[in-house]
Amino acid sequence: MVLPPNVSEADFNAALNEFRSAVGASWVFTSDEDVALYRDSYSIYWGEPEERVASAAVAPTKVEEVQQVVRTANKYRIPLYPISTGRNLTYGGSAPTMRGSVVVDLKRMNRILNVDEKRGFALVEPGVSYFDLYNYVRERNLKVMIDVPDPGWGSPVGNSLDHGVGYTTAHYRDHFGSHCGMEVVTPEGDLVRTGMGALPNSETWQEYRYGAGPYIDGLFTQSNFGIVTKMGVWLMPQPEAVANVLISLPNAGDLPAMVDTLRPLRLNDTINATYTIMNPFRSIVDGFSAQGKSRGDIYKGPGSIPFDVVARELAAEGRGLWNATFNLFDRDKGLDLRLAAIQEAFAHVPGAKVLTKRWQRGQPIEQWMRVQPGLFALGIVDWYGGPGGHMNFAPVVAPIGKRVGDLYEAIYKRFVEYGIDYYCGMLNVGPRALLVNAVMFFNRDDEDLIRRGRELYGVLAKDGTAAGFGDYRHVRLQRARTSGAERASQGRSRPTGHSRTGEARDLAPRVAR
Amino acid sequence: MVLPPNVSEADFNAALNEFRSAVGASWVFTSDEDVALYRDSYSIYWGEPEERVASAAVAPTKVEEVQQVVRTANKYRIPLYPISTGRNLTYGGSAPTMRGSVVVDLKRMNRILNVDEKRGFALVEPGVSYFDLYNYVRERNLKVMIDVPDPGWGSPVGNSLDHGVGYTTAHYRDHFGSHCGMEVVTPEGDLVRTGMGALPNSETWQEYRYGAGPYIDGLFTQSNFGIVTKMGVWLMPQPEAVANVLISLPNAGDLPAMVDTLRPLRLNDTINATYTIMNPFRSIVDGFSAQGKSRGDIYKGPGSIPFDVVARELAAEGRGLWNATFNLFDRDKGLDLRLAAIQEAFAHVPGAKVLTKRWQRGQPIEQWMRVQPGLFALGIVDWYGGPGGHMNFAPVVAPIGKRVGDLYEAIYKRFVEYGIDYYCGMLNVGPRALLVNAVMFFNRDDEDLIRRGRELYGVLAKDGTAAGFGDYRHVRLQRARTSGAERASQGRSRPTGHSRTGEARDLAPRVAR
Repeated sequence: MVLPPNVSEADFNAALNEFRSAVGASWVFTSDEDVALYRDSYSIYWGEPEERVASAAVAPTKVEEVQQVVRTANKYRIPLYPISTGRNLTYGGSAPTMRGSVVVDLKRMNRILNVDEKRGFALVEPGVSYFDLYNYVRERNLKVMIDVPDPGWGSPVGNSLDHGVGYTTAHYRDHFGSHCGMEVVTPEGDLVRTGMGALPNSETWQEYRYGAGPYIDGLFTQSNFGIVTKMGVWLMPQPEAVANVLISLPNAGDLPAMVDTLRPLRLNDTINATYTIMNPFRSIVDGFSAQGKSRGDIYKGPGSIPFDVVARELAAEGRGLWNATFNLFDRDKGLDLRLAAIQEAFAHVPGAKVLTKRWQRGQPIEQWMRVQPGLFALGIVDWYGGPGGHMNFAPVVAPIGKRVGDLYEAIYKRFVEYGIDYYCGMLNVGPRALLVNAVMFFNRDDEDLIRRGRELYGVLAKDGTAAGFGDYRHVRLQRARTSGAERASQGRSRPTGHSRTGEARDLAPRVAR
Repeated sequence: MVLPPNVSEADFNAALNEFRSAVGASWVFTSDEDVALYRDSYSIYWGEPEERVASAAVAPTKVEEVQQVVRTANKYRIPLYPISTGRNLTYGGSAPTMRGSVVVDLKRMNRILNVDEKRGFALVEPGVSYFDLYNYVRERNLKVMIDVPDPGWGSPVGNSLDHGVGYTTAHYRDHFGSHCGMEVVTPEGDLVRTGMGALPNSETWQEYRYGAGPYIDGLFTQSNFGIVTKMGVWLMPQPEAVANVLISLPNAGDLPAMVDTLRPLRLNDTINATYTIMNPFRSIVDGFSAQGKSRGDIYKGPGSIPFDVVARELAAEGRGLWNATFNLFDRDKGLDLRLAAIQEAFAHVPGAKVLTKRWQRGQPIEQWMRVQPGLFALGIVDWYGGPGGHMNFAPVVAPIGKRVGDLYEAIYKRFVEYGIDYYCGMLNVGPRALLVNAVMFFNRDDEDLIRRGRELYGVLAKDGTAAGFGDYRHVRLQRARTSGAERASQGRSRPTGHSRTGEARDLAPRVAR
């Protein structure tokens, strides 16, 4: 049993009993087996003393219960760690930031409280997943699209609070930026509604976010300053048409040209959604994953996969080395104008190919539109053989070709040095910043690979800091501090089978899917 | 002399001396004449004990000086009230929220630190005005447009911090929403940079706003939790073309149809900038102001101007009773598509007229584009004869025709009851909310009118609260609490002549204009 820091066993038991009074005995989890479900299956400290694990979990179903849990935690000085669906793998999953915290599992608070098609918003609880919201909209045939991240098992609340992004237009793709109004349980157990929600009987809580006085919503993102129990989500009216664009450049040195050509198109909103530039290796992996293939199908050697192996594979498929993809949302004729401008811009880049697909309202939704939640992205992590996991280092950089190229190459060198395959996607977070998202896959059973990965990421973080590049989210390499006694108590074997995802069980019935 | 609350004269004098050491003796203002320049000339408590006035003002020119001022204020427990250009008339101007505060006048901190045309942003100090930024861009012929509020003498920093809005596209018109990165002097006198600015040597401070951990920028808006000394402003690439649209509906009962027809066009971004619906009276006033005419030219009677006088005037000009106006920004052919969709939507509203104007890149900027800062809007306040002022009650409402119509009429009734002309513009703040901005003009010398206005606004605020409607900014009707001794010491006559604006003097040379 793990105890919260500086809390006696007697106090902890007293708190657990109060939690049981608040939420019902069956919704307070204390057995090793239950608490283990909150471990982070992508943890790079799995089974080691640094792994951050919970002491218990409690699953309230009402706001009043959350308040009661917070008040009890205050009384006994017990750290709480709220999760919504707890699926943010690579960023900690359901595991707390501080070892010994009690996880407040909000999956049972999964009501969709309001969806207003005409006014374009929803009001949801934290346990509502993207699947739930999507199904709600589809079952009622509402003329809105939701902006989903990949994979789709996360929750709009959780994803917004972690500054997550999706793939539709700039008005919706920044999930914190397109929320409107929160209800928050404060650290004292009080209840606050932000923006217009502060006014009794207000009907514009989901329509105007500021209200009078300071705008405090951002305080509750990537933080532990409150537990968000309701949140407004803006919904995009279904567009008349959607296009997919795949841009392919032939040469290894074409990254700067790709960046410099995309930049003005994104900045002036011709490209009105998120684009992703894939490095050559990523183009292979994404294709392999779709075909059920993995590393062994092209390369069995040690070290980072050689460039010529990757290049040969892409050449065989007739693809260029650098590929970028994005969707456009507009009227059908508006798409023609946007596509013409994109074609014209890339006509100046030697060897560029621009491939497009089109969708019109009334046709069935296609997977390439990326507006349907799915779990597709999860297969990719099994690259090194399952069960897979991944670590990300995602520094923010200005979308200037030379800078992005230099940063990309500097990271590449390190991956080669540590003998690890370099999966990289450059994603625009907002119209002005690029992430160079350097991803390492690992086989969770390959301790040597994980050890090298940890070292690699330590070096990348140091390199980045020295050069002024910071990660766009929180840093993954934090370790828990533990006592010697605790070290002995943790198991080292990871979950397998269905818990490839390693996530806590579903606590409540969901909308069927 | 007004003292800060609960501060002795000896302590205040000691603090003033420390301020003088920090910023230089000539930049600490204590004479009645100097301090009077920080009075709010639109105050509805002018010369009365409730008027909120400063005890002194201090004008630093560097961040280190701001820090020193804050530390001194902490030491002597003196409330500070920072202003950037201090021009936010109707929302307090340069006058502090708490009577006796020392105004920290940031007009001397007026450096434009960086403008990056390629990456689309600027970094500015709080004393930089929209005029300054506009001139900077024009002089260098940079291919960007700035989003300006009216009037343009405000500052991007101050306007963003007060949740101000402009008239270009949805990506820029919400000035807080289009800022990126702040530098803030904390209440302890420490210095914080938000977002990527927290990282040493970061080059993406103006490109990615969140960074790791909570997003705290909103805390410094409409608050007193810190003094913002630098801020990033996103700049719009100059579009290929701009169109102006004026929609005119003939009948008194056409407001709901206007709202319901505009809503989906705005929500799906066909109308990609802010629209304003003008009530019949506003259409008259705006036109009169441009011609140098005022109330006496059409009506000399007491009470609220009769509807038939307004209707006759509009009929004579061949205009409908309800008019809405907005601009569109796109490629030239993109504008054709947007305009066709707007025409098609209003074809279903009997009697609707849609008038348009067009601009293309390369042509001179026109005033109707509203992308040039100006002081045009100030003339309108002289409606009742000068020197004018105005008060606003601007409840937020969902853009549903019937609701907006009902709210509009309820406010109209009250204006008639109090015998005051009802100037109203309905402005969309964000894609989902409408403000019903009910404005009352007053002649600053007409005490009876001001008294009735105060009563009217008290009633409107109560009506609004009871019905769940809240003002989109801070409430204007707060009064200062004062002692009897202080009441005697204040003059009642307002500034005249150049100080129709009643604003503090320009403290430093500006970019020529």
